[in-house]
Amino acid sequence: MKKVVAFGEIMMRLTTKGNRRLIQAAGFDVDFGGSEANVAVSCCNYGTPAAFVTRLPENALGQAAVNSLRAVGVDTSNIARGGDRIGVYYVEKGTACRQQNIVYDRAGSAMAAATCGTFDWEAILRDASWFHISGITPALSESCAMMSMEACRTANRLGIPVSCDLNYREKLWDRETAGRVIGELCRYVNICFAYIDEPQEIFGIRPSPGSGREESCRDLARELQNRFGFEKVAITSLDFCSSMKFRFGAMLYDGSSFYFSRQYDIDAVDRIGGGDAFCGGFIHAALSDMPPQDAIEFAVAAGCMKYTIEGDFNAVSVNEIRRMYEES
Amino acid sequence: MKKVVAFGEIMMRLTTKGNRRLIQAAGFDVDFGGSEANVAVSCCNYGTPAAFVTRLPENALGQAAVNSLRAVGVDTSNIARGGDRIGVYYVEKGTACRQQNIVYDRAGSAMAAATCGTFDWEAILRDASWFHISGITPALSESCAMMSMEACRTANRLGIPVSCDLNYREKLWDRETAGRVIGELCRYVNICFAYIDEPQEIFGIRPSPGSGREESCRDLARELQNRFGFEKVAITSLDFCSSMKFRFGAMLYDGSSFYFSRQYDIDAVDRIGGGDAFCGGFIHAALSDMPPQDAIEFAVAAGCMKYTIEGDFNAVSVNEIRRMYEES
Amino acid sequence: MKKVVAFGEIMMRLTTKGNRRLIQAAGFDVDFGGSEANVAVSCCNYGTPAAFVTRLPENALGQAAVNSLRAVGVDTSNIARGGDRIGVYYVEKGTACRQQNIVYDRAGSAMAAATCGTFDWEAILRDASWFHISGITPALSESCAMMSMEACRTANRLGIPVSCDLNYREKLWDRETAGRVIGELCRYVNICFAYIDEPQEIFGIRPSPGSGREESCRDLARELQNRFGFEKVAITSLDFCSSMKFRFGAMLYDGSSFYFSRQYDIDAVDRIGGGDAFCGGFIHAALSDMPPQDAIEFAVAAGCMKYTIEGDFNAVSVNEIRRMYEES
Amino acid sequence: MKKVVAFGEIMMRLTTKGNRRLIQAAGFDVDFGGSEANVAVSCCNYGTPAAFVTRLPENALGQAAVNSLRAVGVDTSNIARGGDRIGVYYVEKGTACRQQNIVYDRAGSAMAAATCGTFDWEAILRDASWFHISGITPALSESCAMMSMEACRTANRLGIPVSCDLNYREKLWDRETAGRVIGELCRYVNICFAYIDEPQEIFGIRPSPGSGREESCRDLARELQNRFGFEKVAITSLDFCSSMKFRFGAMLYDGSSFYFSRQYDIDAVDRIGGGDAFCGGFIHAALSDMPPQDAIEFAVAAGCMKYTIEGDFNAVSVNEIRRMYEES
Amino acid sequence: MKKVVAFGEIMMRLTTKGNRRLIQAAGFDVDFGGSEANVAVSCCNYGTPAAFVTRLPENALGQAAVNSLRAVGVDTSNIARGGDRIGVYYVEKGTACRQQNIVYDRAGSAMAAATCGTFDWEAILRDASWFHISGITPALSESCAMMSMEACRTANRLGIPVSCDLNYREKLWDRETAGRVIGELCRYVNICFAYIDEPQEIFGIRPSPGSGREESCRDLARELQNRFGFEKVAITSLDFCSSMKFRFGAMLYDGSSFYFSRQYDIDAVDRIGGGDAFCGGFIHAALSDMPPQDAIEFAVAAGCMKYTIEGDFNAVSVNEIRRMYEES
Amino acid sequence: MKKVVAFGEIMMRLTTKGNRRLIQAAGFDVDFGGSEANVAVSCCNYGTPAAFVTRLPENALGQAAVNSLRAVGVDTSNIARGGDRIGVYYVEKGTACRQQNIVYDRAGSAMAAATCGTFDWEAILRDASWFHISGITPALSESCAMMSMEACRTANRLGIPVSCDLNYREKLWDRETAGRVIGELCRYVNICFAYIDEPQEIFGIRPSPGSGREESCRDLARELQNRFGFEKVAITSLDFCSSMKFRFGAMLYDGSSFYFSRQYDIDAVDRIGGGDAFCGGFIHAALSDMPPQDAIEFAVAAGCMKYTIEGDFNAVSVNEIRRMYEES
Repeated sequence: MKKVVAFGEIMMRLTTKGNRRLIQAAGFDVDFGGSEANVAVSCCNYGTPAAFVTRLPENALGQAAVNSLRAVGVDTSNIARGGDRIGVYYVEKGTACRQQNIVYDRAGSAMAAATCGTFDWEAILRDASWFHISGITPALSESCAMMSMEACRTANRLGIPVSCDLNYREKLWDRETAGRVIGELCRYVNICFAYIDEPQEIFGIRPSPGSGREESCRDLARELQNRFGFEKVAITSLDFCSSMKFRFGAMLYDGSSFYFSRQYDIDAVDRIGGGDAFCGGFIHAALSDMPPQDAIEFAVAAGCMKYTIEGDFNAVSVNEIRRMYEES
Repeated sequence: MKKVVAFGEIMMRLTTKGNRRLIQAAGFDVDFGGSEANVAVSCCNYGTPAAFVTRLPENALGQAAVNSLRAVGVDTSNIARGGDRIGVYYVEKGTACRQQNIVYDRAGSAMAAATCGTFDWEAILRDASWFHISGITPALSESCAMMSMEACRTANRLGIPVSCDLNYREKLWDRETAGRVIGELCRYVNICFAYIDEPQEIFGIRPSPGSGREESCRDLARELQNRFGFEKVAITSLDFCSSMKFRFGAMLYDGSSFYFSRQYDIDAVDRIGGGDAFCGGFIHAALSDMPPQDAIEFAVAAGCMKYTIEGDFNAVSVNEIRRMYEES
Repeated sequence: MKKVVAFGEIMMRLTTKGNRRLIQAAGFDVDFGGSEANVAVSCCNYGTPAAFVTRLPENALGQAAVNSLRAVGVDTSNIARGGDRIGVYYVEKGTACRQQNIVYDRAGSAMAAATCGTFDWEAILRDASWFHISGITPALSESCAMMSMEACRTANRLGIPVSCDLNYREKLWDRETAGRVIGELCRYVNICFAYIDEPQEIFGIRPSPGSGREESCRDLARELQNRFGFEKVAITSLDFCSSMKFRFGAMLYDGSSFYFSRQYDIDAVDRIGGGDAFCGGFIHAALSDMPPQDAIEFAVAAGCMKYTIEGDFNAVSVNEIRRMYEES
Repeated sequence: MKKVVAFGEIMMRLTTKGNRRLIQAAGFDVDFGGSEANVAVSCCNYGTPAAFVTRLPENALGQAAVNSLRAVGVDTSNIARGGDRIGVYYVEKGTACRQQNIVYDRAGSAMAAATCGTFDWEAILRDASWFHISGITPALSESCAMMSMEACRTANRLGIPVSCDLNYREKLWDRETAGRVIGELCRYVNICFAYIDEPQEIFGIRPSPGSGREESCRDLARELQNRFGFEKVAITSLDFCSSMKFRFGAMLYDGSSFYFSRQYDIDAVDRIGGGDAFCGGFIHAALSDMPPQDAIEFAVAAGCMKYTIEGDFNAVSVNEIRRMYEES
Repeated sequence: MKKVVAFGEIMMRLTTKGNRRLIQAAGFDVDFGGSEANVAVSCCNYGTPAAFVTRLPENALGQAAVNSLRAVGVDTSNIARGGDRIGVYYVEKGTACRQQNIVYDRAGSAMAAATCGTFDWEAILRDASWFHISGITPALSESCAMMSMEACRTANRLGIPVSCDLNYREKLWDRETAGRVIGELCRYVNICFAYIDEPQEIFGIRPSPGSGREESCRDLARELQNRFGFEKVAITSLDFCSSMKFRFGAMLYDGSSFYFSRQYDIDAVDRIGGGDAFCGGFIHAALSDMPPQDAIEFAVAAGCMKYTIEGDFNAVSVNEIRRMYEES
Repeated sequence: MKKVVAFGEIMMRLTTKGNRRLIQAAGFDVDFGGSEANVAVSCCNYGTPAAFVTRLPENALGQAAVNSLRAVGVDTSNIARGGDRIGVYYVEKGTACRQQNIVYDRAGSAMAAATCGTFDWEAILRDASWFHISGITPALSESCAMMSMEACRTANRLGIPVSCDLNYREKLWDRETAGRVIGELCRYVNICFAYIDEPQEIFGIRPSPGSGREESCRDLARELQNRFGFEKVAITSLDFCSSMKFRFGAMLYDGSSFYFSRQYDIDAVDRIGGGDAFCGGFIHAALSDMPPQDAIEFAVAAGCMKYTIEGDFNAVSVNEIRRMYEES
């Protein structure tokens, strides 16, 4: 079976109950998540084996993170153990006119403190069919940036497709540094996932003035492809009606044609991880040799379904996703 | 006071917390419910005395089911005790694009294993003013089908009106068997409740091609009345916008006129038991001698209110229902 | 810093879990709230110091109420302790077509039983910049009505602006008594807050027949100003779509001009305390010397944000409120 | 079947979670209970039919109290509805060196405000085999004292045995009044239940100086019998090791012999209602014609088992009780 | 690494909250467990790889059981999927004088309905170093008894040590059948685990009359060894002080010497799975070549630690266990 | 009124539910605590005003910590705001033979990163009557050590008594550094609180070989007094029976006499903060001019009561403490 390897940080996620704010919290729900881990979990859900590579402390919280991945079938055998702490993020869901609020507490995490040499990429990627990373991993620390580069280079050398979700996080670094480092990384990337605002945020790539959503997607994808030589570019977009109600869709560009998915109106249970479920859906579709239109439809439906799931990890099957985009 | 007797199975209902899926369940809420039990509960809510007849095991779970009925005033004095287990169903509510998911675990329940002779229908029905059953009861087992027939026949002989909610459940039996057995049962039925899709599913009765909702309801009711000689037929319909948002309404046919209720847009808290609350509402209305248009309005408003209530059992008063359809 | 003093009753609020009704309650969430206390809390949130004056019993429940106020920074040093019990109200939130249901159990509370002389208004108001009361306080008991009058008179004498939210509660008194007592109180009031239905309910003031919302607001404000000589009148309005979905807006009249806020569609988490958050927002705006249009926009956005917060107390910052009405 | 009628007040019981104190409460568990109601519930558990007579308000909380009784099989058909509120008590369990703490909020309850003529005792007691009351009922209000007297007198006239649990509550009245009123009531009482400290507290009856527990029990029982002519006197005792650990036992005096039960070391889950379970156990034993030693053993074991049950209501079967005192 | 294979049924365990009884349950905690699965989990905790072999339905509940095992590192690759339902058991913990109460609902489970040929034992056991089963597995159904025999025979042929925990369950079968079937199975067993009462219950093996605990253990072990030729026999014992307080210890007999462990006084959090943790501890000790006295001490300490853990699965590390029996 | 000022770090405390381990955590209870903060809270409980000085981040979690202190009446006006994060500690309570387990995650906290000059000690201590610190504060960082020194020196200069709880934490620093830094700090300390093991751990002070608890306490106190010139030394001791059961007592030495408290057997609900409640109790006693024997009895009873309270903060009144040591 084709195996996906994803590399990044998994954090402990502490979410307030119901609609209580962080300032009102008398308790937290405990989950685990992180962009690349979520992609690995999604792949497993869809039936594509996946491994997640990270570094976690040797305490009970680090082990609980490992267990959360093993529970859903992710291969954790290449997770390094060590360091002082697991990164944490505190989530207060938005509702109506109140925005979602996240407090990150990830500085000094075991992953951010990992050093080159922690991972033996040759060994890790030997039996992989796909390597996935996002723009968060190189943002964690300089050594994480270097390891990201090394991992992508190794995948290139082994002929393994590399996908990268740009995932710009302004709380981690400024646009200029992000643009430089992710730009460097993109030299090794075959498939690029981007949220519609990110090409401008990190690379200064703008759609033609006055263009609508579809035209903008085309412009951005073409320019990304031009600049970095990606084989495929997938652009997602969200139009917000209120904090938890929005419209979600995507476009795939394969260097020659543009494939637009259906757009879905979402009434979200949890706004985190939809993009990751999209990436996981696309990787699964690609490894399953779905035709481009099917692939983008599958990926978008996977993202939509994720928005109905509590926690970072998607928990829907291929059949549920298919039923959604075939029946709706 | 006029008393309703309902006959069927009551199960333990285990529902996940909030929007968690069954696969994510760390805990369940415990409720009890079942189509005919829900009708009896609704009648009691509306002020019409009701008894529920079933069989439950002699363990704590069986007793908890009895207690849940007694709490809301249902007469449980004719519930037989014995058998191995209480039927269980696991509920994961739907939300947005994700459908509701129910796992039934009811095979071998005390009720399914009940045998003819368990209930003394003459005694049970002696002081009844109405007998209610649904298409689920005869589907549980062959002996349940036989007991259903016996109960209806006894009610007929005693001159007690018999209502039946067709309630076709494809997980319990196939369409052909259902059509044959329920068709047989319908010979003793005076008032038929049907969801708009059921006449076709079990009897192959189709509305005229191309007809709209209202015309379809008329066609189905007329044909049901023709075929089985029902005194009254009430047809309910749901139009889904998403998993928990839909439009609900109904039509009553009394053999001469058609009475259409208002249609309500529902934003449901719990999608289970709306139809049962409708039946209970109609029975209450009939026993209270409401005129037909009032009766169908009351029944539909009762159903709507149920969709706002957690659990299977409706928990609204006659005044709350009246206020809804009079004020809205 | 400018300090607000609010006078009224704070009660223990017991709310059922999720959508369970009172009749189904197996547990309650415990919060504390009351119209004037909520205003004081809102002022503190917005950065305006506030004190709350009331009377609470010397038991653990009274102390818990004090603690809930201190936690969010309200000055509780003038709360008198004594009496038999804390007032309680039981809340069952509405949803969809089911209305919110509140059972009050406040008779004989420590506050209702407080007698004149309990509070030394000269001392309490010495360093105050604003005094706030609502129509609930004088409704609690005759002595509360007398204390309300005394407090307002003292504020007048000290040259402190007095605001009053009419807050007519039909469960506490009839319209005639309310009109007489609140009318008396209004002689000392500078700023009047009213919900659009209240001028008619308690003073018989009606808008011109056939006038729309905006025209009605103008009529009511003009007539209130005429009758009581208020410096400012703010009228709020709600248009209900369903139990938790409504449209909220307000108008400010300063004796010469009318300032209409934006109208917001709300999908409420908790319907209680929006009006209080509005009053608090307006008081903060006034003490911050915001221009009238800004003041009414700030107050309405503050009210909107409150509807997304669990419990009576608002828990949003000035920045969050500003962002809402500036960005939306 | 022999039926027990109990008369008193049932309150809503709000208990903090786990070991949290009232001052720390973020939530309450909701149960219902009251001394005489608990006796009725216990009788039903043990298989002896029982009715509870009280007055409850017509709101959702009053109905929830009724439902809690119906759920466990208590006949509620003679519960009067009306009045303003249900009595409430707030429970913070003790643990180790910290004592249990209860805040009562029962003044002005529907029951306390009930007036003579509310209950038709002739009708209520017509088919009763036993009437039970406790010293709490006459303490609620003057009219409750009068109704208590009337009920007991009626039972006497109808030849129905009357039992009274002295249950002195110092928060309700002083010793002198209690002694006078309960003493008056005792003229109609056949079976007296007393906690070992109560005869002195309300009647000034002291055991001989220096006597141990057993001798004290004998002295108290003899003197109670002398003074009031009781047919039977049962004295219970608790020796506390810590807040939730104690030793429980009882003695029965039938006017000629003394029957001492085994003493049990208890590690309690809930300290409320053990005495009521004891009374219920004794009444069941008496109506089942158990010999005196068996009766006192059954009653004490029933009390012990109650201490392991959450809430006021006992929830154990006759078989579980028997197994306890036969096997231990 | 040496790998353990365990074969049996894993069920969904539904436990009431805190000390609530089943009859009072408003909610259940969801865990998974079963004697042999618990042993596999324990081995993984102690660092010894383990696989669990069973059959589970293809629904969400079956998958949740798989996930619970994967989370803690158990190899689930040989779990067959199919059948109608997962077995369920309902747990009400005991406390003080109230006994633990379990309602089993496992008839017709996927595992009980599994047929010979479901499992390819040659393949499953190829890389195993130990095979473990208990007396529950052959009790589930006739085909389970046959599969048990086949698995043990295959292990014997492959030279893999076989351990069996007698685990007599009177709710599953009578003593005679159990004795016959388990006796047959024991022909293939090398290491026998027995609770002190079981040799008599199923084989009629009695210790010498009047012998104390230690002498009884010796007698039983010797006779078991005589009758079945076991290489090793380990006998555990519990002395109950109350429902959750007891004394736990064990003895190992290796055919020549007797090794008695320390005895521990336990104040249990959860009484289920202590024996399984003992077996897992012993297997780990054996595969780690601990000397006999160390092995029995390790196993007993592992069992003790389990009694402090919620749920069926042990969750303690080798270091925690060592620290316990070395420091105490 | 006499005011206490305490200086240290307050952290967010995340505790698993009931007896679940960290590895099993699906949720956390949120509380706040820290040794010196707990002392300030205790003083407020006992009626002695107290301020807490620390540094907290400007996010919702930092504010929640402030609110938790304000709720119970602690003066928070000198808390500096800034820095990146609040320190966190994860608590898994022990039970029976399983030890309590705490995972600290406090590196890089706002407090640890505070720099000299953050606090204006002259202003802060101007109206103080007591200054309290513990050995944890200087262990947080070098700047914290310097600020600790500065605070104590300032208190000395202003003639304010300084108390220090040695509180050696091996996870924060080694014994040698601790001994040197705390030793330096002790030059400014008037009242020293020590757990019986700490004098040896950080200063190498040993009791005479073979001496019992009482003699050891005397030896340690004498030597501490000799070495650092303390006015008073209080030594606490715990004797563990199991994880949550232990014996607690203390001794006070005032340079001339030794005062031993009663010893209490504790069955703890929460093992954290007992020592802090002891220190707070002693400070309250000292400021209330209790005689030495009363002071040590009060302090020990306060500590005992704390062990029955959930969370770090004590929540008992002076009367409850008095009642304990007077009645027991």
